[in-house]
Amino acid sequence: MQINGNYIKCCKQRLVLGLLIVFSLALNAQTIRVDPSNWWVGFQNPELQLLVHAPKIGETTPKINYEGVSIKKTHQAHSSNYLFIDLEIDKSAKAGQFEIVFKPKKGKNIVYTYELKSRDKSAEAYVGFNSSDAIYLITPDRFANGDTSNDVVKSMNEKVLDRKNDYGRHGGDIRGIINNLDYIHGLGFTAIWPTPMLTNDMPSSSYHGYAMTDFYQVDPRFGTLDEYIELSQEMNERGLKLIMDMVANHCGSEHWWMKDLPFEDWLNQQKTFENKGELKNSNHRRTTNQDVYASKIDKKEMTEGWFVPSMPDLNQKNPFMAKYIIQNNIWWIETLSLGGIRQDTYPYPDKYFMSDWAGAIMTEYPNFSIVGEEWSVNPLLVRYWQTGTPNKEGYESHLTSTMDFPMQENIVKALNEKEDWGTGLVKMYEGLADDFVYTKPESILIFPDNHDMDRIFTQLKEDVTHTKMALSYMFLMPRIPQLYYGTEILMQNTAKPHDHGLIRTDFPGGWEGDAVNAFSGHGLSKDQASMQDFVQKVLNYRKDSKAIHEGETIHFAPENGVYVLARIAGDETVVLVLNRNEAAIDLDLSHYKELGLEGKSLKNMISGAPVKWGSHLKLSEKGMLLLTSK
Amino acid sequence: MQINGNYIKCCKQRLVLGLLIVFSLALNAQTIRVDPSNWWVGFQNPELQLLVHAPKIGETTPKINYEGVSIKKTHQAHSSNYLFIDLEIDKSAKAGQFEIVFKPKKGKNIVYTYELKSRDKSAEAYVGFNSSDAIYLITPDRFANGDTSNDVVKSMNEKVLDRKNDYGRHGGDIRGIINNLDYIHGLGFTAIWPTPMLTNDMPSSSYHGYAMTDFYQVDPRFGTLDEYIELSQEMNERGLKLIMDMVANHCGSEHWWMKDLPFEDWLNQQKTFENKGELKNSNHRRTTNQDVYASKIDKKEMTEGWFVPSMPDLNQKNPFMAKYIIQNNIWWIETLSLGGIRQDTYPYPDKYFMSDWAGAIMTEYPNFSIVGEEWSVNPLLVRYWQTGTPNKEGYESHLTSTMDFPMQENIVKALNEKEDWGTGLVKMYEGLADDFVYTKPESILIFPDNHDMDRIFTQLKEDVTHTKMALSYMFLMPRIPQLYYGTEILMQNTAKPHDHGLIRTDFPGGWEGDAVNAFSGHGLSKDQASMQDFVQKVLNYRKDSKAIHEGETIHFAPENGVYVLARIAGDETVVLVLNRNEAAIDLDLSHYKELGLEGKSLKNMISGAPVKWGSHLKLSEKGMLLLTSK
Repeated sequence: MQINGNYIKCCKQRLVLGLLIVFSLALNAQTIRVDPSNWWVGFQNPELQLLVHAPKIGETTPKINYEGVSIKKTHQAHSSNYLFIDLEIDKSAKAGQFEIVFKPKKGKNIVYTYELKSRDKSAEAYVGFNSSDAIYLITPDRFANGDTSNDVVKSMNEKVLDRKNDYGRHGGDIRGIINNLDYIHGLGFTAIWPTPMLTNDMPSSSYHGYAMTDFYQVDPRFGTLDEYIELSQEMNERGLKLIMDMVANHCGSEHWWMKDLPFEDWLNQQKTFENKGELKNSNHRRTTNQDVYASKIDKKEMTEGWFVPSMPDLNQKNPFMAKYIIQNNIWWIETLSLGGIRQDTYPYPDKYFMSDWAGAIMTEYPNFSIVGEEWSVNPLLVRYWQTGTPNKEGYESHLTSTMDFPMQENIVKALNEKEDWGTGLVKMYEGLADDFVYTKPESILIFPDNHDMDRIFTQLKEDVTHTKMALSYMFLMPRIPQLYYGTEILMQNTAKPHDHGLIRTDFPGGWEGDAVNAFSGHGLSKDQASMQDFVQKVLNYRKDSKAIHEGETIHFAPENGVYVLARIAGDETVVLVLNRNEAAIDLDLSHYKELGLEGKSLKNMISGAPVKWGSHLKLSEKGMLLLTSK
Repeated sequence: MQINGNYIKCCKQRLVLGLLIVFSLALNAQTIRVDPSNWWVGFQNPELQLLVHAPKIGETTPKINYEGVSIKKTHQAHSSNYLFIDLEIDKSAKAGQFEIVFKPKKGKNIVYTYELKSRDKSAEAYVGFNSSDAIYLITPDRFANGDTSNDVVKSMNEKVLDRKNDYGRHGGDIRGIINNLDYIHGLGFTAIWPTPMLTNDMPSSSYHGYAMTDFYQVDPRFGTLDEYIELSQEMNERGLKLIMDMVANHCGSEHWWMKDLPFEDWLNQQKTFENKGELKNSNHRRTTNQDVYASKIDKKEMTEGWFVPSMPDLNQKNPFMAKYIIQNNIWWIETLSLGGIRQDTYPYPDKYFMSDWAGAIMTEYPNFSIVGEEWSVNPLLVRYWQTGTPNKEGYESHLTSTMDFPMQENIVKALNEKEDWGTGLVKMYEGLADDFVYTKPESILIFPDNHDMDRIFTQLKEDVTHTKMALSYMFLMPRIPQLYYGTEILMQNTAKPHDHGLIRTDFPGGWEGDAVNAFSGHGLSKDQASMQDFVQKVLNYRKDSKAIHEGETIHFAPENGVYVLARIAGDETVVLVLNRNEAAIDLDLSHYKELGLEGKSLKNMISGAPVKWGSHLKLSEKGMLLLTSK
């Protein structure tokens, strides 16, 4: 069941629109697309702008007769098949349905039934991901195929299922995630970020989801909107937050509006596109967003260049486009009861729009979270984008969270290089010291890997000990940890570094007949099972650890290959000892006396064994040791 | 001639003090040391604290009878051979001499004649180095030997001149600098920073000057205080600013007070030192200054650890030590009419003291400049220490300038690596983009090398073209450029990388009989002469260039191996084209049209040849091209 009758009618509008060009006189309510397809009463912002798309709809005059709802203004577009209607929904408006009557200059009225819903929960109840969370990142096509009936949708451009093709569709879907929520929950995760699941009706590589062809529709190969809502509900029942992956920068070249663009500046380089000229890609010089010396041409090429030729670059400086994106995101937050948004290619759209966008969302949902993807190992940029940073130019992003690519790199470099005074663990130590410039480091995401990076096990040269050291540090530091599905079982892409298809390998057990089943543990190697157990133990401890969520952080400069990080809240202390010495050593604990642990009995978080904090601590082998006072 | 009669009497006090231990009853004015040895009327701060050192002086009561000068308090030290006197010099005090009468409990009074001088110029007239300047850094022992009579001072611990020993004394001195001021001035430099020239009566490696054994005395092997003053005057006449290299962190182990320390906490780890225990070196974990997670023990070991065992670590938390250092620095500013201070090992002393220190100086000299040495390639630290930075913790350094080690590294890396989308010139481009976080980037020092680094020619693998590219960029970017003596003639230390002795090689022509004379040009290779000519042309242009001093900066992301940086003020535009293409290329100038140069006639800054800014610019070979509209 779709939540809105009109919505169903608008599906597959690509085909419908094709017909419309031929039968444009056969205008009726069945062919109208209205975005957003419904709205809610009770928002802070009383304004709503409807995009109406139908043949010659721009030549009609809309009327509404509903208590508390008024049309403030209508806007014709360059294409007469669009009409933009500014509604004001005042506080007196009640949930319900009403008719929008479109009066043409000649001929019959067109009537569209619109619904204003009441909101399921309070604005404050939308609590975004925060430092108490651990996020599981999933590429849905590659996680689990829960419904084979939607593997191929014949009406769509990419028609085949081909698990042998790393860049083809493999059949994973929403049902596959729903089926395995207990596994994810059991591992100790508290939030899931699936990469985009909206329609990507692209001829190839549609599996990744970042080339959206309809911002309001769930890709039928992933499932239905109802299934997406079911996923959200099942997650909520387990205390799991659902994070949605949004793309404000671009759409897919097969997006429905590409054949009939409303304005002449709906896209960047639209004239070049329409005259079939050669489109300029973004120069990808992302520092132009901050650089006070950047030339105008570089700034323009960065923002207005296309990400890739198959992804038309949306022009967020067009105010109708800007509203469209913001309302679309709010529609999904409300529809799916989201627990956060991840914004793709965050530094590519106009940054002032991005500030308005996040500002609009945070105004409606004060406890929400938004993380933007800026792939940069420069902490200055991680800092720049986070809300509350006193940027010299006054820029305020309203973004609660950024991604800690600098620390990710530091950790991997640290473990891959020789331990010495200036190399090895000190890279982690000095990297973490940079936190002094962050407004709220505990709201920043840390991750061993993601869907665009080599698997951490590959990055760390398939060293299990180092992988556990990296993960334990990430789980303990003042951050929000995010893991990519399969990292808990040492998935790797060593054969083809940087190969996206291989990085996004199918999760074993997600397909019927899989020889190995990571959900049940069947067929996992000893190392894989040990890593899975490790992740489960640490994240389940972390789930209720005030020390890790919001405690004080103390770390000690690495000495003789040993680096100690502690988190403390009240009587809870968690200590991580990272030790790079192969041979057994006796760690002199007097150096750490400010931790106040002398004589206390601690517990090994993994083995559960008691550990006495005496004058020395015997470290028998290289690796990580997690001790807790609780 | 010394400027103060009492001062002479205090020289060679090491010997005198030795005698005093034997003849402590033979107390008379000849043996009193008073620091500072004189002072001035007319400071903002009316307070002056005198350190008086003489046998049993702590057991006397001092009296002063002079209009406007009063003793507010006296402080006995732990050693009875010290007395600290707090004077207040109010606005009514006139310049002149007065007696300080020390009354012992028994016996004869001791009388010391103190002088308050009038100030030579207004506080505002002490203008520190700024972006209009270019600084020439000299290691005085290695630049020029202007006076062979002071090469060896028999009474001092290091008694030999040994030019064959890279770590021995070579004889360079103040007279050598004075003799060659026209050379330095002719090259286009506007400021000179000699490394320390105060007494370093150490048994070895005394040439470098950083182990001071008397903070008020010029090392006799460099010359006299009069010669230092003469240097300052000769510089002032040529419009050259004199920058003094100060050390607040430590002294040399042969410092005169080491045999009779005033307090029990005059030094850090003083008890360990006095009991001849094993001193702990600094952990050198400088990030503990900023790190909000740093353990107490790491902070303590950083600040209180000794830099090296031969350099006792001063405890600036002792308020008498703090005042001693601040007054000493003001004494030198006034005595030498300084145009700036460079502070050695800046992050090692207590940072709150360092803030007080710089704050006290900047209060007295509002247009002065101070640069601190923090050797870190992390822009966050360069930012942290500069005055005006809104640090989260509220720390304000009062330091006008920091050192741009990050950009130095970026430039060298850029030129040493292959040109590609993410490597090569883009490192310079993205590095400079970091300027958005600096309060005042144009007040930060940039340098190809210094006395502690490999020579830039060595860093750049002896590539002359790359060296010119690096230097032209540093001269043009919004910074204060600083060159190490000899860089203008491609001095190198390729045979022994990182070898301090070799880095500080004698400047050819500075010693009688030198086969090559860089001052006259005699014997220089073609490359050396060409580099000298290049430096001279660019710095002489820079000297009067408003565009470079304070103009707008625009740069264009590197494309196809070409990176363009421009500085603009009014009708003056300076353009630097860095080109890494070996083969000739035609640069399409339409990309740079926002520079507004179309159709204009520019001039090649080096050759003087006219250059038309048309539709294309022919670049016939790899290298730098400096064009100017003036």
